[in-house]
Amino acid sequence: DKSLKVFTLNSNLKLAEEIATHIGTSLGKCSVSRFSDGEIQINIEESIRGCDVYIVQSTSAPVNEHLMELLIMIDAVKRASARSVNIVMPYYGYARQDRKARSREPITAKLVANLLETAGADRVITLDLHAPQIQGFFDVPIDHLQGVPILSDYFKEKNLEDIVVVSPDHGEVTRARKMADRLGTPIGIIDKRRPRPNVAEVMNIVGNIEGKTAILIDDIIDTAGTITLAANALVESGAKEVYACCTHPVLSGPAIERIENSKIKELVITNTIPLPEEKKTDKITQLSVAPLIGEAIVRVHELKSVSILFD
Amino acid sequence: DKSLKVFTLNSNLKLAEEIATHIGTSLGKCSVSRFSDGEIQINIEESIRGCDVYIVQSTSAPVNEHLMELLIMIDAVKRASARSVNIVMPYYGYARQDRKARSREPITAKLVANLLETAGADRVITLDLHAPQIQGFFDVPIDHLQGVPILSDYFKEKNLEDIVVVSPDHGEVTRARKMADRLGTPIGIIDKRRPRPNVAEVMNIVGNIEGKTAILIDDIIDTAGTITLAANALVESGAKEVYACCTHPVLSGPAIERIENSKIKELVITNTIPLPEEKKTDKITQLSVAPLIGEAIVRVHELKSVSILFD
Ligand SMILES: Nc1ncnc2c1ncn2[C@@H]1O[C@H](COP(=O)(O)O)[C@@H](O)[C@H]1O
Ligand SMILES: Nc1ncnc2c1ncn2[C@@H]1O[C@H](COP(=O)(O)O)[C@@H](O)[C@H]1O
Repeated sequence: DKSLKVFTLNSNLKLAEEIATHIGTSLGKCSVSRFSDGEIQINIEESIRGCDVYIVQSTSAPVNEHLMELLIMIDAVKRASARSVNIVMPYYGYARQDRKARSREPITAKLVANLLETAGADRVITLDLHAPQIQGFFDVPIDHLQGVPILSDYFKEKNLEDIVVVSPDHGEVTRARKMADRLGTPIGIIDKRRPRPNVAEVMNIVGNIEGKTAILIDDIIDTAGTITLAANALVESGAKEVYACCTHPVLSGPAIERIENSKIKELVITNTIPLPEEKKTDKITQLSVAPLIGEAIVRVHELKSVSILFD
Repeated sequence: DKSLKVFTLNSNLKLAEEIATHIGTSLGKCSVSRFSDGEIQINIEESIRGCDVYIVQSTSAPVNEHLMELLIMIDAVKRASARSVNIVMPYYGYARQDRKARSREPITAKLVANLLETAGADRVITLDLHAPQIQGFFDVPIDHLQGVPILSDYFKEKNLEDIVVVSPDHGEVTRARKMADRLGTPIGIIDKRRPRPNVAEVMNIVGNIEGKTAILIDDIIDTAGTITLAANALVESGAKEVYACCTHPVLSGPAIERIENSKIKELVITNTIPLPEEKKTDKITQLSVAPLIGEAIVRVHELKSVSILFD
């Protein structure tokens, strides 16, 4: 189908190539570089007049560079007379700034939605937003894919016994519930709370984990503080072994060191954010979301429902 | 006047402090830092409810970081119930991407205008846009200040004799004309042209420069290729000595080295972009735009005309 074109920028070339391969096409030609002063220079090197263009870009670190590349590319695609500009953001940066937690804070997740629409995005395909409410920050259609099926299938094939799926925090237990449904297991919750300000947090484990194989699931693992503390608490409370998984491996700062030194037996992540060579360890397994995203693009392009991919 | 608040971000703290001092106030309290993964974290630390807020930020390098800081700050200020959000951008980054010079290029200068308005800017104060037409990219009021009076006054005080003001390129001769008017001198033009593709440029000097003191003027000096070639051509063609000046010292890549090795006697710049220690040399003189911008802010706030500052 010559009217479907997939382009990518600098955040995740390998994933974009896998997606293009899955669709049976190759990436559109486009140069994304920097002028001498650091300003982004983009030039699309093939005609896209009348085409449905899909731009694959995660707004992972360096988030501001990747976001500006995306906004400028949207502008270029729109001005090159594409029929539609479709944004594929496997990882949506700034998603955690989704509300005013304190006075006089920005709501950057909403700002980013507005910026994408202003630049000219007609549709957004993304995966596991930190809060599903971020869908409502957009006025254009958004397809919200989920990593849970991919992560669950991996654990299913391991044939582990006596599993409990554990949410590392009471904020997003639904994700653990979804995985537990797929694996046919009970759930547990790490119920952290701070009894008084300036007093250490208490880790309360809700659910029966004694002698079981625990699988911790989160959407993002960033500095890995929460997940490694949770894993160690589970082992101390009698779990047989602890696996951890997430969709978005942000893994900033001390993350890798913490994971290596923790009781986590294996960490399973996806490739919405690439894992640089220096962060690869024997403990980490990376699964590809390319088939999921590729399939979603094909279905969107053929005007078919996307939710069937993870319902 | 308690309803006027000036804030700044990370691009040009010193200029912002000078501006605040000129106005007779101090900078508003606000923390602008980074989360572990590099996302920008902004918190405004004093009430701005009902205030007219002026945010001072040049979108100089690193341009994408500085632009995102500005957009997120605008969002925070707007949500904190400011009466108006006024953007003071001494240097407007991406201004050179103001048209499609080739097919399928973005027009990033227009995109930036749209992004600022989408974030919530009610007014923009800026200096010497690369093309004055960029004013029309905005739907909100824009005050377009000029550096020529500041640069001209400096040269007036030097009491140089037999001056010719030279435009380093035929694209923007108006700036040279304005300075020449202020100094009461004739103008010259470096009329570069490429006779055929892949053939070296020919430097043609229009105007009489023999035995004269030439002052080259440009809006931006970036890699300093144009300006140093022009200076050397002027000296080779009989100019007695050559000064150069500009409003925006981008000075990227080989700029400082080129200036040092050129026939330029003195380079006069303003502080719309800070000059880092390692770029300071005896040849470079930096003038402050703080009085100009401070005065403009006061006049805007008092609903008085701003053009009087440079007419
Ligand atoms: N990039 C980030 N890294 C760490 N914390 C963040 C980041 N962005 C936002 N936050 C904070 O994380 C909190 C939201 O986290 P959560 O309760 O998990 O939804 C908010 O209070 C934000 O201020
Ligand atoms: N940051 C930049 N550095 C160098 N050249 C640029 C930059 N941004 C845009 N340009 C190019 O500069 C040209 C405009 O320069 P001018 O003819 O001086 O207006 C356009 O062809 C742009 O592609």
